[in-house]
Amino acid sequence: MKVVTLISGGADSSTLLYYLMYQPEVTEIAPLAVNYGQRHKKELDAAKIVVEAAQKFLENTRVEMAKTDIKAKVPKNIRDLRVVDFPIGVFGGSPLVDLTDTVPTQADNLQPKTVVPYRNTMLATLAASYAKSLGFDSIAMGPTYEDLANYPDCRPMFFESLSDTLRLGDSMHHLKILTPFNELVKKQIYAIGNSMGVPYKSTWTCYNGREKACGVCDACKERLQGFKELGVNDPMEYETLTDETKK
Amino acid sequence: MKVVTLISGGADSSTLLYYLMYQPEVTEIAPLAVNYGQRHKKELDAAKIVVEAAQKFLENTRVEMAKTDIKAKVPKNIRDLRVVDFPIGVFGGSPLVDLTDTVPTQADNLQPKTVVPYRNTMLATLAASYAKSLGFDSIAMGPTYEDLANYPDCRPMFFESLSDTLRLGDSMHHLKILTPFNELVKKQIYAIGNSMGVPYKSTWTCYNGREKACGVCDACKERLQGFKELGVNDPMEYETLTDETKK
Repeated sequence: MKVVTLISGGADSSTLLYYLMYQPEVTEIAPLAVNYGQRHKKELDAAKIVVEAAQKFLENTRVEMAKTDIKAKVPKNIRDLRVVDFPIGVFGGSPLVDLTDTVPTQADNLQPKTVVPYRNTMLATLAASYAKSLGFDSIAMGPTYEDLANYPDCRPMFFESLSDTLRLGDSMHHLKILTPFNELVKKQIYAIGNSMGVPYKSTWTCYNGREKACGVCDACKERLQGFKELGVNDPMEYETLTDETKK
Repeated sequence: MKVVTLISGGADSSTLLYYLMYQPEVTEIAPLAVNYGQRHKKELDAAKIVVEAAQKFLENTRVEMAKTDIKAKVPKNIRDLRVVDFPIGVFGGSPLVDLTDTVPTQADNLQPKTVVPYRNTMLATLAASYAKSLGFDSIAMGPTYEDLANYPDCRPMFFESLSDTLRLGDSMHHLKILTPFNELVKKQIYAIGNSMGVPYKSTWTCYNGREKACGVCDACKERLQGFKELGVNDPMEYETLTDETKK
């Protein structure tokens, strides 16, 4: 199985990259990041760091295994991060791409305001196109159980339909869409990631593009909540942490 | 019904714009052109000319009607052409966007080589996003009966599935996809267009981006064939016309 995996540089998609690296049936991974005009461009730098860390991990593993008699059944490969400029937010509609709007700071039910219309349809189609050009058979995305409530385009039903659409749109490319985290909550995802050595310190989740994460936007809050439930400190640097969110 | 209509500047999508203008239930039209790195950029200039011609037609009609007692039931409006840069061919795979490849010149079964992977999925999703931002309820695309054989993403089955996917991806935007030409051959489409005054002279169909149309690429051949069957001269300027294609 050869997989194009979408990576934003956030905690979920970074964990997804490591998760795929550990799956025996996955032989090659091509990480794809999309610069879509988001205000949190720091994500893209984070994505690059995470991909390089994963590549280095594989390289070290290869070196160590070469010293032993163990033969790796499948030589894994993670390609260099491909970043494409793709202005999916060109028509506005979300403060994540519309710089005249402000990012909501209070959690309650404001996450939907941050939706870029048809975002996952476009991202998945772009990943499918990349997969086609590489001769890969699968794409992977990291929606979590928490995303289901607010984002209709993170639901299994949506991905099933999208899968049909993509197959009908290219009968020569029988593409699989992998969303292995859609029944896991963030706490469980971070537990997996910690066991696999995901460099969470280098990831970036905050909707604001400042030097340190704000700690108060919905994305920060959800992330902090996940680490808190897991009982592990979030190593990403924050501007301020209230008593409520601090572990 | 308020419709975002995709216009390439070619004969089919230009006819579609005029066709929509004549539909009583359509009250507003927003034409959208996508600069996706195609080598035939002349299409985009053509699209602008066609949209302006349609706007002028409506304006003249309004002026003439104001002189009479006839009250227009629905005041139509065609918005200015919106052109967005959207590199859907970023991963190559088609000579239409890959300038190192050559456009096939002999017709037989080479049209599939000009497919940009997942092109219609991306274009339709982009149009859906524009429609969402305008509060419009529909998008329109102009695949023809001839396209069905070579392009899986021009088939009714594909559009039905895409329609489901887009609705599942945005439960607040119950979008309709209109493809009124998918049971018509080009001859029939040009007949409709001629009766409605589509300025075919200003449209651009050729895959090559030279000053005049080449007359030998598949797009030119299909177009010439359509006009020939209709028994009408194609007013677009061609470099050379062989006896076979000339009317």
